[in-house]
Amino acid sequence: MRYCRFLREGVAVWGIIEDGYCHELDAAPYDGGRKKSGKYALNDVKILAPVTPTKIVAIGLNYKAHAAEFGKPLPETPLIFIKPSTAIIGPNDAIVYPSHMSHRVDYEGELAVVIGKLTKDVTRDNAPGCILGYTCINDVTARDLQGKDGQFTRAKGFDTFAPIGPWIETALDPQALRIETFLNGEKRQDTSTSDMIFGVYEAVSFVSQVMTLLPGDVIATGTPPGVGKMKPGDKVEVVIEGIGRLANTVVGRS
Amino acid sequence: MRYCRFLREGVAVWGIIEDGYCHELDAAPYDGGRKKSGKYALNDVKILAPVTPTKIVAIGLNYKAHAAEFGKPLPETPLIFIKPSTAIIGPNDAIVYPSHMSHRVDYEGELAVVIGKLTKDVTRDNAPGCILGYTCINDVTARDLQGKDGQFTRAKGFDTFAPIGPWIETALDPQALRIETFLNGEKRQDTSTSDMIFGVYEAVSFVSQVMTLLPGDVIATGTPPGVGKMKPGDKVEVVIEGIGRLANTVVGRS
Repeated sequence: MRYCRFLREGVAVWGIIEDGYCHELDAAPYDGGRKKSGKYALNDVKILAPVTPTKIVAIGLNYKAHAAEFGKPLPETPLIFIKPSTAIIGPNDAIVYPSHMSHRVDYEGELAVVIGKLTKDVTRDNAPGCILGYTCINDVTARDLQGKDGQFTRAKGFDTFAPIGPWIETALDPQALRIETFLNGEKRQDTSTSDMIFGVYEAVSFVSQVMTLLPGDVIATGTPPGVGKMKPGDKVEVVIEGIGRLANTVVGRS
Repeated sequence: MRYCRFLREGVAVWGIIEDGYCHELDAAPYDGGRKKSGKYALNDVKILAPVTPTKIVAIGLNYKAHAAEFGKPLPETPLIFIKPSTAIIGPNDAIVYPSHMSHRVDYEGELAVVIGKLTKDVTRDNAPGCILGYTCINDVTARDLQGKDGQFTRAKGFDTFAPIGPWIETALDPQALRIETFLNGEKRQDTSTSDMIFGVYEAVSFVSQVMTLLPGDVIATGTPPGVGKMKPGDKVEVVIEGIGRLANTVVGRS
């Protein structure tokens, strides 16, 4: 199934996408949402970020070739950091370049896991039952601040630095997906999620042994090699096999 | 004024404390909460963490003598990291020692700022108007994991690692408060908040230039020198002049 959130006459609602239509749900899928009578052509509605998480937990350096491009040793356990919910934007929304603090802002295309129920201390084997589905995330990063601060929070926490979408696909093998990122139409990242160091189920299990994951929380599973800088006016697209295309533009601060 | 949250017949509600009584509010203070008719003796109710933030943004190394005790250079700008909302516990709740991952867990007593309205790109001069009030926080830290990971998120993000309370005091000069931490009744930290490197208003302004702060969000302003380890069975208390005493015990994992 394919879950989304969209604007229905100015109100954000959940939906299921079938045959090119958004069928409205009366609640989030993890709150037992059921189809209402209304349906809206996908092309006619504004699609929103498909999640409203309390937190985004991201995994750093989770592809060998990405660790290599920064000359970093491979982590022995998943290296986690948090992106705040205030950073979230949806498909086609603008990434705002924080030129008051940074002069080097990178895209990082990633597979995002959406949690479907309260998840605490789960084993790797039980992790699949805690997952609602998968979507695309762009872990936008002020690379200059990441190096300067050491801590990733400022570099990755600016408003608009977490584009997510376009929707949540529930029926996928998360370890067998092609993931690509395009900058102004040129391919910059192209890897299989089979190259992750810590797989999705292991990551969910690990994070759940640290902090309780709530329904709708997101785990960003790390970026493959090929990251690079963006500037105002650029268009960036993260494309994941079986999910779809998350497109955003970069704009300057107003 | 002194705002709190407490359990009224099993339901979490907001209140104002006056003359030893919790007067129930019909909403959070930042949502225009007004007094209802009910009042309850402070000693008869379970006091909860006085906030339900979307995020806790914490400032690292914000007292010179604390930076010195770790041999760290003073940061040129506030060094920020995030503690997840799932880490929050209230007064007298138990800090659970994560012995499956850590063998060194420290207390860090800190002044916490509670945000009162949507705050984005505010100047230092306008920061006071964005603050609802102040409370105590214990920025509990798995010191061994902090060094191992480099990123602070796992070390500071375990469930129960953010005791907050006991209530929010609105009428305070945040830069003129004695802050003390006691371990099993022995004083371990004793400093004035006047020793902060980046003051409260500067911290709020800085963070708001990175990420939007929402009503109820918390900024933890860093710990003074004297941090040290705890073990199951210990009692830890953070005491801040003009606010009160936040007491918690440490327990093993069940």
